[in-house]
Amino acid sequence: MFAHRHLLGIEALGRADIETILDLAEDYVALSRQRDKKRAVLKGLTQINIFFENSTRTQASFELAGKRLGADVMNMSLASSSIKKGETLIDTAVTLNAMHPDLLVVRHQHSGAVALLAKKVNCSVINAGDGRHEHPTQALLDALTIRRHKGRLHRLTVAICGDINHSRVARSNITLLNRMENRVRVIAPPTLLPTGVGRMGVEVFHDMRKGLEGVDVVMMLRLQQERMQGAFIPSNREYFHRFGLDEEKLSHARPDAIVMHPGPMNRGVEIDPNVADDPKRSVIQEQVEMGVAVRMAVMDLLARNIPNMAA
Amino acid sequence: MFAHRHLLGIEALGRADIETILDLAEDYVALSRQRDKKRAVLKGLTQINIFFENSTRTQASFELAGKRLGADVMNMSLASSSIKKGETLIDTAVTLNAMHPDLLVVRHQHSGAVALLAKKVNCSVINAGDGRHEHPTQALLDALTIRRHKGRLHRLTVAICGDINHSRVARSNITLLNRMENRVRVIAPPTLLPTGVGRMGVEVFHDMRKGLEGVDVVMMLRLQQERMQGAFIPSNREYFHRFGLDEEKLSHARPDAIVMHPGPMNRGVEIDPNVADDPKRSVIQEQVEMGVAVRMAVMDLLARNIPNMAA
Amino acid sequence: MFAHRHLLGIEALGRADIETILDLAEDYVALSRQRDKKRAVLKGLTQINIFFENSTRTQASFELAGKRLGADVMNMSLASSSIKKGETLIDTAVTLNAMHPDLLVVRHQHSGAVALLAKKVNCSVINAGDGRHEHPTQALLDALTIRRHKGRLHRLTVAICGDINHSRVARSNITLLNRMENRVRVIAPPTLLPTGVGRMGVEVFHDMRKGLEGVDVVMMLRLQQERMQGAFIPSNREYFHRFGLDEEKLSHARPDAIVMHPGPMNRGVEIDPNVADDPKRSVIQEQVEMGVAVRMAVMDLLARNIPNMAA
Repeated sequence: MFAHRHLLGIEALGRADIETILDLAEDYVALSRQRDKKRAVLKGLTQINIFFENSTRTQASFELAGKRLGADVMNMSLASSSIKKGETLIDTAVTLNAMHPDLLVVRHQHSGAVALLAKKVNCSVINAGDGRHEHPTQALLDALTIRRHKGRLHRLTVAICGDINHSRVARSNITLLNRMENRVRVIAPPTLLPTGVGRMGVEVFHDMRKGLEGVDVVMMLRLQQERMQGAFIPSNREYFHRFGLDEEKLSHARPDAIVMHPGPMNRGVEIDPNVADDPKRSVIQEQVEMGVAVRMAVMDLLARNIPNMAA
Repeated sequence: MFAHRHLLGIEALGRADIETILDLAEDYVALSRQRDKKRAVLKGLTQINIFFENSTRTQASFELAGKRLGADVMNMSLASSSIKKGETLIDTAVTLNAMHPDLLVVRHQHSGAVALLAKKVNCSVINAGDGRHEHPTQALLDALTIRRHKGRLHRLTVAICGDINHSRVARSNITLLNRMENRVRVIAPPTLLPTGVGRMGVEVFHDMRKGLEGVDVVMMLRLQQERMQGAFIPSNREYFHRFGLDEEKLSHARPDAIVMHPGPMNRGVEIDPNVADDPKRSVIQEQVEMGVAVRMAVMDLLARNIPNMAA
Repeated sequence: MFAHRHLLGIEALGRADIETILDLAEDYVALSRQRDKKRAVLKGLTQINIFFENSTRTQASFELAGKRLGADVMNMSLASSSIKKGETLIDTAVTLNAMHPDLLVVRHQHSGAVALLAKKVNCSVINAGDGRHEHPTQALLDALTIRRHKGRLHRLTVAICGDINHSRVARSNITLLNRMENRVRVIAPPTLLPTGVGRMGVEVFHDMRKGLEGVDVVMMLRLQQERMQGAFIPSNREYFHRFGLDEEKLSHARPDAIVMHPGPMNRGVEIDPNVADDPKRSVIQEQVEMGVAVRMAVMDLLARNIPNMAA
């Protein structure tokens, strides 16, 4: 029984919730591989994707997920919009809410903004990434990918490597993997670690070879240079030398370790193209496929909890 | 019997037309509050929203209205488009017309541009705002909101306050409210009044307290500083002091007066946040809800008059 | 029997393929003129329009074509997108492919980019224009327009006039018209001809009056000044004087010659407004109408060849 009204973060999900989502997502993986990819579980419902921060691929994934479930989907790129006319986040949320959406998919550059917005509306809200806080559907699609390759989602050793500090992907994944009782390592230079990393339930490494030793899963992160202000910006070449995943560094992981990346990749910066494209190790494309299926599952489950009268 | 082919302005509508639209809109208010928000009256038809001037919320409202009626909806933001390649407004219109839309929803920065375009196409055209001229669906949604709160749409006293000069919203509302036999006041500094205000059938006030005395409805306008060129631009602070709606100024209106605003609001400029958010007085969110319903009604009525062969 | 998986250019099409597309397109012309413009041949399928180069009208034409066939259509304007985050064309293609589209409609500024992309995906790819290379649906819609007016698509004399050098429209049309056994002339100043024009199977003219002598079809091209770098940029006035189509120059063509233009037009540069708007000669609006129908036909035919399991 999935009893949530919103999906604001992994933090609020129990083990059973996570398993319910992943199990239903498996059905949608199968559906999306068929010629007729539609199942009308959101028919008559309205989904609005509000992106205060641009993201081509995440928005596309939610859009396809909604359309395949039969929803009316509307995209709003508010990075360049009435926000400019001086309207506040809350006014925007309340305005959209008055149009009676059933599902709001929201990305925002500030941590906590999506949760704040969820308090002001009476529809279901899905966090599609808020600041450095959470990106729950990314962690769920990563979990589904891992479970399909490893046959389980517990008692695995997972290394998350790179720009932990700016990464909501890392944060959501750490929460999910810990909840499912895996061992999580983070590997990064000290400058790319958040201050509270000691309380996150992870082992910290500053050396790729040591950190990758014996892991089942290698999760690379995008170096988010666009979020680094003034401070430490490594040269791409130096960064690749020390923290880029190449075949040599990967050889320290288990022989059957899989390589993941949330995309878009900086090839030659955080990952060697040979590793990214290695069909035996890389599951990066499969992550994208799982993304659509997981989002279909989440929206399907949330929509079951929408009362018949929204207003 | 609604016999119009286009909705270019309130000017062309009779009392019965307005009542027909509002009565049908009531049905769509009820529909939009249900889980299944769709009624397939535009099934098989094509709606194109052409916005030569950006407007997130108006475009969203028309998009949802069309989708809920089952139309295929296509958005074209032409503020940044082939217009740049030197194409004229008329070429754009004629080109789109050749793709056989049934409904064209058009916003344009020049007064009269939408009516000009309507002469060149053989589908139904809806004016979504043209320059300082008309914004008929806004006036209709305002009328529906008033009727729902006051139980009637005649013999009311309505004050329209603020930047009358740049406001197509004001113009369409004045026309509609006069047609339905209400008393309309405008309250603004002389610099924000159009030159022909004396012939518009309204009482003019330059003082908020006097103008609001005993009114049933207070309709605030957005201060459109982006349309003011060089001339008089008041400081936000001074403007708020003299013309911003706060609780003290509002106390001069009838105790049951409602407060309206077409959005997006400049909080602290033309309206005090406490008034904007007062659940007993403000109907601003309800205006947004009525907007979708009124647009569904207008498109439904216009589509009934489309002949079977468009070409 | 249309046996192609992709439509990357006219080059790959035989005479029978072209006739199959045009015959089916005739059905869709009729459908698009009805009130109910939909036929659900792409129901359950996903169409993604990826435009690395903006084009309002071509994207609109493909979008309407897909929606009228019942596909789920998603637009991605990648001119301003994750490309900026450093992702390569191939990564973008492979990412989208993982979302299981059935049809990818792609425009790209580089010749050959669409064919490269087609090798990396397992869905059908339609070239919506790649650099100076091909724009096959434009040539097909032009062919349909000619056939409807001339009653045949062979043994006609067609003059293509203007900026041949930058024009994928010219290239695709020359290929198609030659394949159908027509006589093709190009008329342009030497500076606007490609270097290999001698091997393209066309007669070359530098004088409009001589080149138009006795032709059945006059195909004007857009002067693409935005693609001319530094080199020869004629003044609009001088260009119009020598190569702009006016009534006098047109009088050298056959009395029943039709005038075509792929749009958007530079009125007064490559074409006189009187000629562009002459209802007896100009078929420019009809070309737009044929565009939607031809794209419906192409997508319908390609979709018949999609295997049931895409992954």
